[in-house]
Amino acid sequence: MSSTPETFHVYDTTLRDGAQQEGLNLSVADKLSIARQLDGLGVGYIEGGWPGSNPKDTEFFRRAAHELDLQHATLAAFGATRRAGVAAADDPLVAALRDSGASVVTLVAKSHDRHVELALRTTLEENLAMVRDTVSHLRTEGQRVFLDAEHFFDGYRANRAYALEVLRTAYDAGAEVVALCDTNGGMLPSWVGDVVDDVLSTGVRVGIHCHNDTGCAVANTLAAVDAGASHVQGTLNGYGERTGNADLVSVVANLELKLGRPVLPEGRLRDATRIAHAVAEVTNFPPASRQPYVGTSAFAHKAGLHASAIKVDPNLYQHMEPELVGNDMRLLISDMAGRASIELKGAELGYDLASMDEGRELITRITTRVKDLESQGYTFEAADASFELLLVEEVDGARPSYFEVESWRVITDSRPGEEAVSEATIKLLAGGARIITTGEGNGPVNALDQSLREAIGQAYPEVAKFELIDYKVRILDQGHGTDAVTRVLIETTDGVSSWVTVGVGHNVIEASWGALVDAVTYGLRRNGA
Amino acid sequence: MSSTPETFHVYDTTLRDGAQQEGLNLSVADKLSIARQLDGLGVGYIEGGWPGSNPKDTEFFRRAAHELDLQHATLAAFGATRRAGVAAADDPLVAALRDSGASVVTLVAKSHDRHVELALRTTLEENLAMVRDTVSHLRTEGQRVFLDAEHFFDGYRANRAYALEVLRTAYDAGAEVVALCDTNGGMLPSWVGDVVDDVLSTGVRVGIHCHNDTGCAVANTLAAVDAGASHVQGTLNGYGERTGNADLVSVVANLELKLGRPVLPEGRLRDATRIAHAVAEVTNFPPASRQPYVGTSAFAHKAGLHASAIKVDPNLYQHMEPELVGNDMRLLISDMAGRASIELKGAELGYDLASMDEGRELITRITTRVKDLESQGYTFEAADASFELLLVEEVDGARPSYFEVESWRVITDSRPGEEAVSEATIKLLAGGARIITTGEGNGPVNALDQSLREAIGQAYPEVAKFELIDYKVRILDQGHGTDAVTRVLIETTDGVSSWVTVGVGHNVIEASWGALVDAVTYGLRRNGA
Repeated sequence: MSSTPETFHVYDTTLRDGAQQEGLNLSVADKLSIARQLDGLGVGYIEGGWPGSNPKDTEFFRRAAHELDLQHATLAAFGATRRAGVAAADDPLVAALRDSGASVVTLVAKSHDRHVELALRTTLEENLAMVRDTVSHLRTEGQRVFLDAEHFFDGYRANRAYALEVLRTAYDAGAEVVALCDTNGGMLPSWVGDVVDDVLSTGVRVGIHCHNDTGCAVANTLAAVDAGASHVQGTLNGYGERTGNADLVSVVANLELKLGRPVLPEGRLRDATRIAHAVAEVTNFPPASRQPYVGTSAFAHKAGLHASAIKVDPNLYQHMEPELVGNDMRLLISDMAGRASIELKGAELGYDLASMDEGRELITRITTRVKDLESQGYTFEAADASFELLLVEEVDGARPSYFEVESWRVITDSRPGEEAVSEATIKLLAGGARIITTGEGNGPVNALDQSLREAIGQAYPEVAKFELIDYKVRILDQGHGTDAVTRVLIETTDGVSSWVTVGVGHNVIEASWGALVDAVTYGLRRNGA
Repeated sequence: MSSTPETFHVYDTTLRDGAQQEGLNLSVADKLSIARQLDGLGVGYIEGGWPGSNPKDTEFFRRAAHELDLQHATLAAFGATRRAGVAAADDPLVAALRDSGASVVTLVAKSHDRHVELALRTTLEENLAMVRDTVSHLRTEGQRVFLDAEHFFDGYRANRAYALEVLRTAYDAGAEVVALCDTNGGMLPSWVGDVVDDVLSTGVRVGIHCHNDTGCAVANTLAAVDAGASHVQGTLNGYGERTGNADLVSVVANLELKLGRPVLPEGRLRDATRIAHAVAEVTNFPPASRQPYVGTSAFAHKAGLHASAIKVDPNLYQHMEPELVGNDMRLLISDMAGRASIELKGAELGYDLASMDEGRELITRITTRVKDLESQGYTFEAADASFELLLVEEVDGARPSYFEVESWRVITDSRPGEEAVSEATIKLLAGGARIITTGEGNGPVNALDQSLREAIGQAYPEVAKFELIDYKVRILDQGHGTDAVTRVLIETTDGVSSWVTVGVGHNVIEASWGALVDAVTYGLRRNGA
């Protein structure tokens, strides 16, 4: 069975429902960056947020209209039906949906009678009118409409006739699909299957939106599809309120790889692991190592007894080929998988390592260094620039070097009633001269960055155009507080492209310094210095 | 339907299969401690390990025999069938099982023909004999025997007749139950149900052992029970190789609370949250906040719009009462904070705001301040202690204050070949004296923390027992690099309990300082200073 984006919707709600997760806080830039990753994964729909409900989501849709160049996905705006007693055309929140620039609007509606009475404080009849009017209005204005039937499963139990009437009302008014939401997350697969089956008999197109409160979000979603649902909602890495939403990658991988039902553009699933991890970098939540399909442990085997049998036939010990989701088999006692990925990574950067002189030894050496650095807390998944510097060092026998640091010092001062100020002094040798500079900044890293570029700029004026555009800190080895190892990722641009470097240290300033030095070194090399 | 420990087995394998998790390493003392927690949860069986296969597991069974005083659970020893071509009585590994002191032995056996040939390197006939002989031998020696049919589901697909013959052989030789293992973890619920149904028709008693590679371990387990399995295996917190095993608490909670099938002694499930977290302390893996039923976020709501309806009927917004698994509903003070959620949050902390003098104005004032601070980058979702200080300030008209800061300064220095060192100097007034202290640390915040506690300790010695145990940095407003606003969350303990505070600033050091000052202030107030 094959599916097209229209016969089967893969609908992502990371940017809206996923963002409800405790501790998750996305800036507009974060949301744009995640939207690009989702488009790369090939999802059909990206729910971007609720324009009109808060300035950030409004801004996201405004910027998305000209900054996002989506190849696969259609952007959807989420929002509520009109308020009670107001015409849809006169409701400012409905207007914000209409004017969002999104061609799809996903309207959330109450389908549980008690919620209508208690949360909306209106009558069951008026709620139906709110659904009907809002869908009709947006359809008349030329938008496609999906309906999210909130608390549907609980509502169906409490008052089946009314819950179904809400769906039917939306569908008759022009909604393309009605997504049944297990908002409180208490369902089990067999129940979901039965309800979807019953709802389908009313003639509407059914979608499914699950939460993981029983640990069954993925299975509940599959049960709905098995019963005939043709629209699945979920989030990357299962982000979401409470226990999270259905993990969209697990849902899609199960549909494609287990049930033989392609739902993404061909080959996109092979980027799933990279994309899941890239999004984790943006949200700054550490990826769950045990996450199905994409976790770093998902295909890791404590080989032991079975090593020889694994060599003969690895598929006896894994449920699928990890490459299908862009992951790797890892034997925890062997470096085989490591070598292969180093080779691939080298090729990605334009280095055909295997065909170089002593290629085997070279790959072994790089693999060993990467493993060693990773055990100290480095990561090269995102920090391509630091990895390339390491590669160049091993291939050429020396690290590119444009300056020699003698010492540095940062002072941060605070006096009552004033903002703290940081000041960094750097002593280094560059272009044959000894240079001492002091830079100020509104933080220690900002001050170091200013001072470093001023010092090096005396020998290499091109560093003036480098700009630090992103700075991420992650504390590894939690439980030791400020004693922990700190990893810093820095993104730098030269106005044309950007690159990411990594630094690690017990001292966050030292870790930042390492990443800054790599950033400037890489930038100078790329600019032909 | 009611179950007794004999009609329905709740079988925990945290200490054996759970310990296969990457990075998990349990000492004998750890295993004894976890076994006590499992017994407290009321599981029927605790698989302690593989005596004879390694010294640690042998030692565990030796010590368990006289150190563990199990109230509910029966200890099971795990091990393999005899080697090919050797009598069961003469196989030293079988002898180790026999002599383990465990009254139950769980024998793992191959049921997949290719695995017999490739991994065991013996014939299909000899494998059957190995199963038959080993079960008979242990039964004759007075032990109960369960069978783990490894790779059963894949084996059933490859050679159904042989896979069933292995089960039948074990059962006829005296095994009480045959657990079907989805060793590679690739199954989906409907498939599991169908296979269990078929196996049951052969007349054996069926158990189920699932892994989470498709994200369906819990649902697969439930599907097996629904089809008639009466023995479920799983691990605490879903620990296990690759993506982990079925999370036993989720399985049991779904059986008891969703399917109305009591499988633990009455009331034991109410300790599930405490026990899951206690075991996480032993394994030293941070508990997953999104974990079904027991996660800290599992019943956390970003209240906002719905707070007033939650007040009327909380069960409209949760799939069950969290107390049933020993968890709590939590309202998060998020950027959607409204008056109602501030009021609820106050009540949670013991402040009945509405009934105070000028309660309405008070709630308005707090709500406005929270919204204002959140727009600057603060978050009170996790930082309960900072929120309580704010509440106290508004209620009492003044912030609790134990010291007055004059100024502080941090210097971080790096010289070639040395690790960077940070040094913080603080000047403050406390207990009527002007105090100047300088503290060193392996990072600027560590140095500030040391120096601050040294300074205040001169007036309030109780700060000596405070310890910073977690430090989280989040850069908000990304895209501006080190110019961005930084939010710092700090968790502090006094050895009895812990609290979280928040600080925000353009300068990461200033943000950290704010969180440190709140942490010490809150701690002093809680300790009655």
